[in-house]
Amino acid sequence: PAKSWGKGLEALREAKKVGEDDPRKIVHSFKVGLALTLVSLFYYYRPLYDGFGVNAMWAVLTVVVVSEFSVGATLGKGINRMLATSLAGALAVGAHHISTLWGGEVGEPILIAFFVFVVAAIVTFMRFFPALKARYDYGLLVFILTFCLVSVSGYRDTQVLDMAHKRLSTIAIGSCTPIMVCIFICPVWIGADLHNLVAGNMEKLGDFIEGFGFEYFHIKESELSSSDTQSSLQGYKSVLSSKSLEETMANLARWEPGHGGFKFCHPWEKYLNVGALTRQCAYKIEALNTCLNTEIQAPAEIRSKIQEPCTNICSESGKALKELAAALKKMTRASSANPHIEYSKAAAERLKLLLKRGIWDDVNLLETIPSAAVASLLLEVVACVEKIAEAVHE
Amino acid sequence: PAKSWGKGLEALREAKKVGEDDPRKIVHSFKVGLALTLVSLFYYYRPLYDGFGVNAMWAVLTVVVVSEFSVGATLGKGINRMLATSLAGALAVGAHHISTLWGGEVGEPILIAFFVFVVAAIVTFMRFFPALKARYDYGLLVFILTFCLVSVSGYRDTQVLDMAHKRLSTIAIGSCTPIMVCIFICPVWIGADLHNLVAGNMEKLGDFIEGFGFEYFHIKESELSSSDTQSSLQGYKSVLSSKSLEETMANLARWEPGHGGFKFCHPWEKYLNVGALTRQCAYKIEALNTCLNTEIQAPAEIRSKIQEPCTNICSESGKALKELAAALKKMTRASSANPHIEYSKAAAERLKLLLKRGIWDDVNLLETIPSAAVASLLLEVVACVEKIAEAVHE
Repeated sequence: PAKSWGKGLEALREAKKVGEDDPRKIVHSFKVGLALTLVSLFYYYRPLYDGFGVNAMWAVLTVVVVSEFSVGATLGKGINRMLATSLAGALAVGAHHISTLWGGEVGEPILIAFFVFVVAAIVTFMRFFPALKARYDYGLLVFILTFCLVSVSGYRDTQVLDMAHKRLSTIAIGSCTPIMVCIFICPVWIGADLHNLVAGNMEKLGDFIEGFGFEYFHIKESELSSSDTQSSLQGYKSVLSSKSLEETMANLARWEPGHGGFKFCHPWEKYLNVGALTRQCAYKIEALNTCLNTEIQAPAEIRSKIQEPCTNICSESGKALKELAAALKKMTRASSANPHIEYSKAAAERLKLLLKRGIWDDVNLLETIPSAAVASLLLEVVACVEKIAEAVHE
Repeated sequence: PAKSWGKGLEALREAKKVGEDDPRKIVHSFKVGLALTLVSLFYYYRPLYDGFGVNAMWAVLTVVVVSEFSVGATLGKGINRMLATSLAGALAVGAHHISTLWGGEVGEPILIAFFVFVVAAIVTFMRFFPALKARYDYGLLVFILTFCLVSVSGYRDTQVLDMAHKRLSTIAIGSCTPIMVCIFICPVWIGADLHNLVAGNMEKLGDFIEGFGFEYFHIKESELSSSDTQSSLQGYKSVLSSKSLEETMANLARWEPGHGGFKFCHPWEKYLNVGALTRQCAYKIEALNTCLNTEIQAPAEIRSKIQEPCTNICSESGKALKELAAALKKMTRASSANPHIEYSKAAAERLKLLLKRGIWDDVNLLETIPSAAVASLLLEVVACVEKIAEAVHE
């Protein structure tokens, strides 16, 4: 009993954490409850029930399945479901007619079984096509489902047309309820989330680069403790594996209508470009981070020779990234980042000159170079990000 | 018409490509068709139909939803669906009893609506818990669904217990059919796929490192053209973003029973460790790749001074990675990789000595160092991978 008590307490703590991380998740839970309660009115209100009868449960089922966290996902699933149901229903009614006309007493179930087998196999295979999988996977699933249900039920129930029609209308009601609830009560726009994710990722990189300069040259920042900055430096790690998340979000965002500053056909794929470049930059930063944590560290006098241009590069390109992120967030031109980029370029030139002159003639070369080399690579990436950011802002 | 003809041709070409990439996908499509045809026997065979009536469609629905490509995913969905249906069914029958006992004529629908709202909200929120989301997301969805259907239908249909029981048995039949088909006809074990993916990723990195030595020092390999090696060098890119794929696969693999060389409780999370270390290594390789493609290239005489140890490191650590991958694939001890690792360590020591002596006294330092530095970093990672590979082989 003490153990299960402890487990319950742990679950509550977990719940609190999830809720605090994103309060919209709590709101979403209530929205699902509301949509379900609305749709269950079908059962309570007699005239509606008399019209649809047992089919009303399709509406309940649809609400549960279609209710997703973001507007994009809900809309995508709802539209997929409605389209697929109407197409498959029409096709199934056709298949039913053919098999009753041609099949006769014995042939009918065989013909229907054949149709079911062929349609299920073909549509299942189509689900593997990457282009269809990205946007219509759920629709294809519902297509198989409706086709089988309607054509197979037709063998026992001769009112196929009526059944297909009832199924379509209950599913339409079941799809529209969560879509309405989702859009009109505290909507969660996944497009806006993607926008913030991409901007936030750039900001994280900016944070790292700024912090890196101080950390690498052991410059103590005012009252911040070392462990504080260390943890702030690790924020970029999530950027490394953000690819699949961004792609899913961009696919869902395409379903969303215009909202806030975004139009209906907002160029979401440009965010993927920016995201890819940000990730490129994150890989360099991963390399920088290794230089920070490796055991072989250069003596302080070697570092101090390149300290001035390096810290300049770090702080300036960090600021540039942050400015770009802020501009992306506000959807304005990123002109305020330009001077920072210029400064960082100038610092890189100075660093190159320093290295060409050969300032460490008879010391161990092994240690200080990586950071300098990576810093100059970083610079190219920053320039690149700037170009794409401007492309997005057009 | 010519345009739609072209589109149809394109779709056929796409289908051929998908089928050639993985013929198991074609087999899977037929398996789904077969499972559906089997289950539709319910409708044709009268005694069965008389028993379940219209509820038989739950079996059809379940087959469509549960049929997944891999055994792990099918088992996971099927078990989730059956467990959730029985739990939620029991709870819903209880809720129905309470509301008929306490509610009376007016209060009953209100009480049921209240229960539905509360259960839907709580379970929807639980779906956000990361631990539950990973393995039981589908079960929680089905839980909401069954609870709502049974408790709400109970308002019109007084045979709640009978309905819940029929629903459970049709869903059990609907889940077991695709599970049987999935396991006994050309099974696709996602655990084996994960195993091959992790080993394949190590192999890709090995390929890159081996090829890198030749490419960087402009050593022409026999008859291979430069573009051929270039494309083989790009194979590692997919490793960079393999994290979420590996995690999904490991989650699904936990559902699978023992098969081939894998036991039921195979330590799948160790593959995630190996995968994470492989990715670490891939980040270094991304940095190496930048050195290959950057505009600033060192003159040949500078390179030639470090050529011997560098090519040694490349070929030896490349071989070591490939041996490790092969050993992982065959699930044997990776002892054959050890000499390669020793050789590459020795080569790294020679390289370090060379750099300490300062062989390029008055030349531009900027260019050749990154590759040497990264190669030595790489070495640490190889040693690390070896340790984990051995841990897996225990």
